[in-house]
Amino acid sequence: MTLDAAMAELAFLGDRLSQSAAVLGHHGQSETHIRSRLPDAVVFPRNTEEVARIVSICAAHGVPMIGWGAGTSLEGHALALRGGVTVDFTRMDALLEVRPEDMLVRVQPGITRERLNQELRATGLFFPVDPGANASLGGMAMTRASGTTAVRYGTMRQNVLALEVVLADGQIIRTGSMAPKSSAGYDLTALFVGSEGTLGLITELTLRLQGQPEAISAAVCGFAEMGPAVDCVMTTIQSGIPMARIEFLDTGTVAACNAWSGQNLPLMPQLLVEFHGSPSAVAEQAARFGEIANSIGCTGFRWAEAQEDRTRLWKMRHEAYHAILASRPGCTAIVTDVCVPMSALAEAVEETRADIAASPLPGPILGHVGDGNFHAILLIKPGDEGERATAKALSGRMAERALRLGGTITGEHGVGMGKLDYMAAEHGAAWAVMGAIKQALDPKGLMNPGKLVPQQ
Amino acid sequence: MTLDAAMAELAFLGDRLSQSAAVLGHHGQSETHIRSRLPDAVVFPRNTEEVARIVSICAAHGVPMIGWGAGTSLEGHALALRGGVTVDFTRMDALLEVRPEDMLVRVQPGITRERLNQELRATGLFFPVDPGANASLGGMAMTRASGTTAVRYGTMRQNVLALEVVLADGQIIRTGSMAPKSSAGYDLTALFVGSEGTLGLITELTLRLQGQPEAISAAVCGFAEMGPAVDCVMTTIQSGIPMARIEFLDTGTVAACNAWSGQNLPLMPQLLVEFHGSPSAVAEQAARFGEIANSIGCTGFRWAEAQEDRTRLWKMRHEAYHAILASRPGCTAIVTDVCVPMSALAEAVEETRADIAASPLPGPILGHVGDGNFHAILLIKPGDEGERATAKALSGRMAERALRLGGTITGEHGVGMGKLDYMAAEHGAAWAVMGAIKQALDPKGLMNPGKLVPQQ
Repeated sequence: MTLDAAMAELAFLGDRLSQSAAVLGHHGQSETHIRSRLPDAVVFPRNTEEVARIVSICAAHGVPMIGWGAGTSLEGHALALRGGVTVDFTRMDALLEVRPEDMLVRVQPGITRERLNQELRATGLFFPVDPGANASLGGMAMTRASGTTAVRYGTMRQNVLALEVVLADGQIIRTGSMAPKSSAGYDLTALFVGSEGTLGLITELTLRLQGQPEAISAAVCGFAEMGPAVDCVMTTIQSGIPMARIEFLDTGTVAACNAWSGQNLPLMPQLLVEFHGSPSAVAEQAARFGEIANSIGCTGFRWAEAQEDRTRLWKMRHEAYHAILASRPGCTAIVTDVCVPMSALAEAVEETRADIAASPLPGPILGHVGDGNFHAILLIKPGDEGERATAKALSGRMAERALRLGGTITGEHGVGMGKLDYMAAEHGAAWAVMGAIKQALDPKGLMNPGKLVPQQ
Repeated sequence: MTLDAAMAELAFLGDRLSQSAAVLGHHGQSETHIRSRLPDAVVFPRNTEEVARIVSICAAHGVPMIGWGAGTSLEGHALALRGGVTVDFTRMDALLEVRPEDMLVRVQPGITRERLNQELRATGLFFPVDPGANASLGGMAMTRASGTTAVRYGTMRQNVLALEVVLADGQIIRTGSMAPKSSAGYDLTALFVGSEGTLGLITELTLRLQGQPEAISAAVCGFAEMGPAVDCVMTTIQSGIPMARIEFLDTGTVAACNAWSGQNLPLMPQLLVEFHGSPSAVAEQAARFGEIANSIGCTGFRWAEAQEDRTRLWKMRHEAYHAILASRPGCTAIVTDVCVPMSALAEAVEETRADIAASPLPGPILGHVGDGNFHAILLIKPGDEGERATAKALSGRMAERALRLGGTITGEHGVGMGKLDYMAAEHGAAWAVMGAIKQALDPKGLMNPGKLVPQQ
């Protein structure tokens, strides 16, 4: 790597090339326990052509390139493991085109989820994928993000229709089209979604939109024990009720959310549910869910039909991570993220709960259980290597448990730095196939090096 | 290629290795106008290990390998362009496991769509992807098939959750898991779905199932002109009604179906629609659709609520290709298959209709219009090179029109031999990326050679 030569050529960016300590520091930290790794420089491109020029310069000089969206990754995806140039997309955040008749939108990668939906409000359409954090759409595509609404609307896999990508050699390609489906060759869009910046940098996305539901209704319902709450989720999903959201919070999470958000939910496992549709469809779905929940021992509903009540409810859910962090002041977290087949959800959650209960660490559990996806937030003291090791071991056992039950080591957070050690166990020989694809598309290994594929 | 040496080693298959003229002939023909190309041999493996051994032998001797499911491809996917061994999966047709609680099924690739659903009948579940033909699931995955129900349930892209694949060197890998979603690395499942046998052979599929709807209702409604019929589709989709099916037949298709199936639909453009859900949801959807259709000039509904009426209706639709072929005795067909953004559907269909009307060829139009996907069946006399050239030119203009309107050259039939010439126009530089992936996974170029990627 001849960084100086690359820096000289990148000077065309003017003050949109930075090596200041503050800027490097901001781009070298993660939201979680993962240690900082600083890049050598940060660039702020304004358009695709600038990205292509940056990549060409870095490629010519052997400088690693790491994409940066909103910095909300939980697995250290955007940390510069081998130094290099972080490409910050915050100045490529335009909404390029809304096509209401096609229920599509074209955006630059730096636009955040919340701003996209604000800008769409007048159209009657919305982008459904909701990971909680106000992530950038480029970052969400790169981690194949999902969240509370994936049970109804799918993950980024289902909602990214087309991409513009700058490849490792600076070439610009387009994948997919605006047609709702295609059989024209390899699904490159699906290959880049979830590739974590290791194959190229996304410079534009075409996203599917949904019509804003005519009616929305939400509710909270508590269960005396975790078991029946999880059973209720399994039965509900298997019954085919098209849940828009069905979230699980354990008692520890409820306590943290009450303290953080000023709520007063009963201290017991809770399900947070939402229904979307026509008024009569919502009423029917809610009634059917209510029958199931009551038959399994739900202790009572609190309905949130007014917009402001729903907003408060989902704000509480979205802030659960920060609420849990605040429940042990000064701590940091290992955020686990497994996903299992629906039939294995109760076993996976219960074994995880017991494993954490037998450890000295707090580890509230919550999740997008309608997808079989749940998280334990393992709270550790920064610098306490004993706690860190205990948490890593718990996290490792969760990953092994998910695999044993036919699931995956990460439902939505991605591999990043936290899950690389489990990729061989999940994929076996298929991991080498990922390595072969990486080698084919990034032979110099400069795109987010050290991530996702087997390391040489 | 040292075929003889490979044949000697493949003799372990006994009478499941064939070089008889009848068997080669059966595996060398296509359903459409595409000319026969015979393989040198056909093998009938019974399990994954046999497939791996076959592939290892062929790889060692440089012999091409071509997968074969039910032979229903419309683009000559399974023709042995460079000779070699056709791997026929008809004896790997087991339903391996039904997991009703996970709404999943594991199958071998040779099982057909109709048999799968027969076997699932007692479970209350069904596999929704319905391309019309009684294709094999392996073949449907390899072409990323869809059909009449994709507007509601998605294509093979959305409905294949995991795969077992034998790679070009004989190695067996597994992609995906039974979890509903994952962010664990490159989406290899999505890469193999639609890869048309050029990267490996699928030996097992894990498929998502749907609950059989409580209520189903179907209807036919005619329009005096094509324009309003297509407008009705666009408005219906944009209104968010969750149509289970919404199919368009032009007047020529209706005439052919009437003659073939003994129906007496009015001779005008028709929409065939179906609604799935709870009884009240179906009633509501049907009422909303009815309002739209009536406001746009529908000439009247015929409802098909009884199971036998619906069966007759969709049998007619599924036989439309054969009905159209029979409308010009002795002819063969170029089956076109474009897909455009919903906003461009009316323009694409109308321009296509006018283009065909100005030609001497019959070319009825029909399609899965809720997806923006439609077909013209261009009827030509076998051996008439003038008609063939006229049809190819019409088909080429359809592909160009689809691309100009932001769509794709194939919505569901795949590239095969019929669409290879348009891949560069659709994908530009991204086509070379497909070539690089092919080179990485099949460096000897033995998996279905001559298909999908740029040819050297």
